[in-house]
Amino acid sequence: MTVRVAVAGASGYAGGELLRLLLAHPGVEIGALTAHANAGRLLGDIQPHLAPLAGRELAETTPAALAGHDVVFLALPHGQSAAVAAALGDDVLVVDCGADHRLADAAEWERFYGTPHAGTWPYGLPELPGHRDALLGVRRVAVPGCYPTAVSLGLFPAFAGGLAEPEAVVVAASGTSGAGKALKPHLLGSEVMGSMSPYGVGGGHRHTPEMSQNLSAVAGERVTVSFTPTLAPMPRGILATSTARARPGTTADAVRAAYEKAYQGEPFVRLLPPGQWPATGAVTGANTALLQVAYDERAQRIVAVSAIDNLTKGTAGGAVQSMNIALGLPEELGLSLTGVAP
Amino acid sequence: MTVRVAVAGASGYAGGELLRLLLAHPGVEIGALTAHANAGRLLGDIQPHLAPLAGRELAETTPAALAGHDVVFLALPHGQSAAVAAALGDDVLVVDCGADHRLADAAEWERFYGTPHAGTWPYGLPELPGHRDALLGVRRVAVPGCYPTAVSLGLFPAFAGGLAEPEAVVVAASGTSGAGKALKPHLLGSEVMGSMSPYGVGGGHRHTPEMSQNLSAVAGERVTVSFTPTLAPMPRGILATSTARARPGTTADAVRAAYEKAYQGEPFVRLLPPGQWPATGAVTGANTALLQVAYDERAQRIVAVSAIDNLTKGTAGGAVQSMNIALGLPEELGLSLTGVAP
Amino acid sequence: MTVRVAVAGASGYAGGELLRLLLAHPGVEIGALTAHANAGRLLGDIQPHLAPLAGRELAETTPAALAGHDVVFLALPHGQSAAVAAALGDDVLVVDCGADHRLADAAEWERFYGTPHAGTWPYGLPELPGHRDALLGVRRVAVPGCYPTAVSLGLFPAFAGGLAEPEAVVVAASGTSGAGKALKPHLLGSEVMGSMSPYGVGGGHRHTPEMSQNLSAVAGERVTVSFTPTLAPMPRGILATSTARARPGTTADAVRAAYEKAYQGEPFVRLLPPGQWPATGAVTGANTALLQVAYDERAQRIVAVSAIDNLTKGTAGGAVQSMNIALGLPEELGLSLTGVAP
Amino acid sequence: MTVRVAVAGASGYAGGELLRLLLAHPGVEIGALTAHANAGRLLGDIQPHLAPLAGRELAETTPAALAGHDVVFLALPHGQSAAVAAALGDDVLVVDCGADHRLADAAEWERFYGTPHAGTWPYGLPELPGHRDALLGVRRVAVPGCYPTAVSLGLFPAFAGGLAEPEAVVVAASGTSGAGKALKPHLLGSEVMGSMSPYGVGGGHRHTPEMSQNLSAVAGERVTVSFTPTLAPMPRGILATSTARARPGTTADAVRAAYEKAYQGEPFVRLLPPGQWPATGAVTGANTALLQVAYDERAQRIVAVSAIDNLTKGTAGGAVQSMNIALGLPEELGLSLTGVAP
Repeated sequence: MTVRVAVAGASGYAGGELLRLLLAHPGVEIGALTAHANAGRLLGDIQPHLAPLAGRELAETTPAALAGHDVVFLALPHGQSAAVAAALGDDVLVVDCGADHRLADAAEWERFYGTPHAGTWPYGLPELPGHRDALLGVRRVAVPGCYPTAVSLGLFPAFAGGLAEPEAVVVAASGTSGAGKALKPHLLGSEVMGSMSPYGVGGGHRHTPEMSQNLSAVAGERVTVSFTPTLAPMPRGILATSTARARPGTTADAVRAAYEKAYQGEPFVRLLPPGQWPATGAVTGANTALLQVAYDERAQRIVAVSAIDNLTKGTAGGAVQSMNIALGLPEELGLSLTGVAP
Repeated sequence: MTVRVAVAGASGYAGGELLRLLLAHPGVEIGALTAHANAGRLLGDIQPHLAPLAGRELAETTPAALAGHDVVFLALPHGQSAAVAAALGDDVLVVDCGADHRLADAAEWERFYGTPHAGTWPYGLPELPGHRDALLGVRRVAVPGCYPTAVSLGLFPAFAGGLAEPEAVVVAASGTSGAGKALKPHLLGSEVMGSMSPYGVGGGHRHTPEMSQNLSAVAGERVTVSFTPTLAPMPRGILATSTARARPGTTADAVRAAYEKAYQGEPFVRLLPPGQWPATGAVTGANTALLQVAYDERAQRIVAVSAIDNLTKGTAGGAVQSMNIALGLPEELGLSLTGVAP
Repeated sequence: MTVRVAVAGASGYAGGELLRLLLAHPGVEIGALTAHANAGRLLGDIQPHLAPLAGRELAETTPAALAGHDVVFLALPHGQSAAVAAALGDDVLVVDCGADHRLADAAEWERFYGTPHAGTWPYGLPELPGHRDALLGVRRVAVPGCYPTAVSLGLFPAFAGGLAEPEAVVVAASGTSGAGKALKPHLLGSEVMGSMSPYGVGGGHRHTPEMSQNLSAVAGERVTVSFTPTLAPMPRGILATSTARARPGTTADAVRAAYEKAYQGEPFVRLLPPGQWPATGAVTGANTALLQVAYDERAQRIVAVSAIDNLTKGTAGGAVQSMNIALGLPEELGLSLTGVAP
Repeated sequence: MTVRVAVAGASGYAGGELLRLLLAHPGVEIGALTAHANAGRLLGDIQPHLAPLAGRELAETTPAALAGHDVVFLALPHGQSAAVAAALGDDVLVVDCGADHRLADAAEWERFYGTPHAGTWPYGLPELPGHRDALLGVRRVAVPGCYPTAVSLGLFPAFAGGLAEPEAVVVAASGTSGAGKALKPHLLGSEVMGSMSPYGVGGGHRHTPEMSQNLSAVAGERVTVSFTPTLAPMPRGILATSTARARPGTTADAVRAAYEKAYQGEPFVRLLPPGQWPATGAVTGANTALLQVAYDERAQRIVAVSAIDNLTKGTAGGAVQSMNIALGLPEELGLSLTGVAP
């Protein structure tokens, strides 16, 4: 059986990564590629790394162009997915790489995004407790944000194990592709090379409530998150340092045990051997998260560090992984466990 | 049929890239991994991007360790391949990523390498005229150097078409992985980031006679090469600007036609549409060469620019491609046509 | 009056930056340059950016070589300063860029460095309350560590204002020059470009007790610090995200006011206008710290982000600034307020 | 005497570098700062590295705003300088960082720029034979292009010495700041990091006729130039590899002697000792060119490699150097001989 897929938003970074992965996926056939400002152009002009699709022309993103596929991936600006999905019908698997359907709390959505809430879809982070089963057979998937993927994987075992106080402090560095292809001065190569800078400081980043939602669900109580994202001089990768105060009586052994239990048998999360720390360079292009955790006895804090590729496990790889589960395919199909390094 | 392969030199960059590609190759089973200084260590400590092999222990590079495989890839310092190959026997396919058996001219070898010539093996650049057929069924392959791959692909059509005077001038930029993992001060991140520098200027680089050999064979006369390599602040990639004076009467159309003819049907070389220029970022991790050529009428020079990944098409990918041909497998098996970009 | 200065450790990154600054300082004459492994070599071979000193030969680091100067800067491995200083006499100003004399608590020193405590020298961070006056006329200065400089500047106003609970959580990214010129595999350009990684996670980094010491002194109670350093793909710069839980009743206005008060009139610290965030690229080569602070009401945390050049304000610039104060020279003499950007 | 200077185009990279240098120049007072799209904004929002000018508001670029200064630096898009200069009067020193008045040949100008020729001004590359004297007392200066600076310095001694055939082949790599702050997709950090690419291949780059003009004047015959520029993943720096076929009888010694003679006593050009090669990282922020030359006997080519900072010696530093000469100030005033490295 071959699944016919379409990609809406094929000219962006997320769309390009989806296509890179789908080209390597043995169970899919790539159908429509759509875009908005770039409609009418050849993909080869915009995504020269996707040589096998160089001659494909980008169609305008419309329901008609996306009709007739088994799976439609959406890599669109937020606010557009609900309407597209409605037009596609309930039997089509719609995998949304955008934010529209990630948050369950409408008030939180409106507070951070400023638009009406469009409803909640099954959340595509299979590693979270209960989430893999919940994705079986679904026809709508909300792909997690890149930062929430890294941070939730980094910290949920601490909360699942009842080891952490419900106040997380997170600082993460992201490669520039996380900001997309928008032509903004601070994203020019001259500005980003040799420089690091923060943004969205003080609680304003839109991924903050998503992290809080994921960790709270595991903890069984509301977990606040102080989140500071930074822009790093690299094209890809997220390195998230996620910390929480340990509850009294926590030990380093208990922390290690909680993480080993959480990731036992997970195909895409590798808890590193003690003493080895993750580097984003080791997961470039891979759907893998590398993870390590330490317990700082003096500061009484659990410190987890996770490395993912923001475009792969953080977006397009997570999307394909969820598609595989939803369709009943082997979860690892078409997804690489190896990074392109150095 | 599954081919059992061993990799000697598995702790280096070329060895790591071989393993990355072989893990994705549906027709091989990875056997022995050997090293020298790193023998006894786990691969996961040294090549953390190769998660599926993290638990493998590196053996010492010995004939015994390498015995019992159908294919042995050598990624060793030059001067060591001949002895290893002799111990393996004639029925084993030995694919040498080192320089030992690339040059046909013993005097040239000795001039540039300073050691006795070890003989010549079939040369693994199938895109050169006659080379693909010559690789069928062989049991020894000399994988081309990374620079000669980029430059030969860039310039041979001009010589094959009789369009160029036999004096090439080449300047190429390489990512730092081309220099390997040697701990030298000028390879530190602090030194290479934000900086470009030349090396081996004035004719001294060991890849110079290899380029001359390849281009001379096509031209039917001796082609001299002025070659200047430079070190660029990126981990991977070669961008080669290869130029030659045009013979009288050459036209831009004739140049374009010669290149289109040379690469018609080649799976791994993409002559870009007029007006588009190659970027190394588009071939990261791919076995592809992107190529463009221009004719500068005022300076009367043919200017070809080629982009490859030095570790993939420039080393390990070329090695796997040659293995596929030698074993009668589909040439593209296990090799990616897409780069990891951005 | 011209001050005659010597630099011990002139072949390293800290030594090189000292010389770059001293060459631009109108009040000094550069005397002896010493080294250990590189003794006997020309500075031009090792520090090609210091053209005016290219012909200078490096002497062996001995008391004799360093004798006869008004000021001696030490950029040596830790454990060596005390003996050198003792040999120089009490009338020579010794400015130690190493760690030996930074910590007041001998037990903390021994815990983190594993060697006997060599005593405490006046601490060269004039922006800390009371420190500028304490440096007037001294003949020994302990230059702060690069991370403690960034973090102390980032967070002390919150503690000085009584706004923060005594548990700081800090994550900082450093350029690779912070790791020096040691030939270690993970510092190779191929490894660091395109990658971020943590180190010393869980409380083990030696700069942790120094941060705690500085903040505790201001807070008037013991401040614990959870510190996670990360290595960023850039040669220079530190971006420190320093956070602390706000005491009840804290407001955004109170936070802003505390920082404005702390840095009123400081020549080298620039509290940015609201809405602008620091980037390390803006302080390359400058002795400036750029700083911004936010109050995250939901998480009830004060989040300060500071950007410095680890080699300038974080090491050599701080050293020259302290020298200026100690000698009674204008504090800004020879120090740049502008970064080399982009 | 203090010279009052204005900078038109203060929000761009060239304008920012001019201001960085002028802030360090003891003989100038910075007057009007003008811009076009950014008029009305504070400089601190746009050029955060220029802290001492952060509060300055950018005026609109008009004759009125620029009136009343002794020196006006123009960093404007080409085609605008002539009108501005005419309005300023003949007694004001106008230093044009743009291309308008560099070329003497009107036909060449029109061929490459497509607009009417605006006339030729004294050319600000004092190191070229006769040029320093020609700059004394002038009131108009055409600052050379960044590539022509690097290439002319690299190759003129070979032509001055009669050692080279009149056909130069040049390949140069530039940092991204050479492309300015234009918001173009290929200049995004995500695109340029980890990637090299050529542009303007085949003779089309506008700096080509300028190189030809400079080298021809020295050679006494028309020198053609095959020029291929490439974009390198670094913010600053040009590394130019400039080659020419040697005339019969040329020797390595003769080449070396020609270069030593050409740069004897030049303050800003450093011919490196034999065996050492230039790196752009060593000249970041410096007004220095580092240079080395080799003679490739087999290919019979002279190969010169030069490294400059495109914004300093390649633009703003060259502009200040010319101002110093024109005004009779010491040529080195306010210009750094040291790079910010690593």
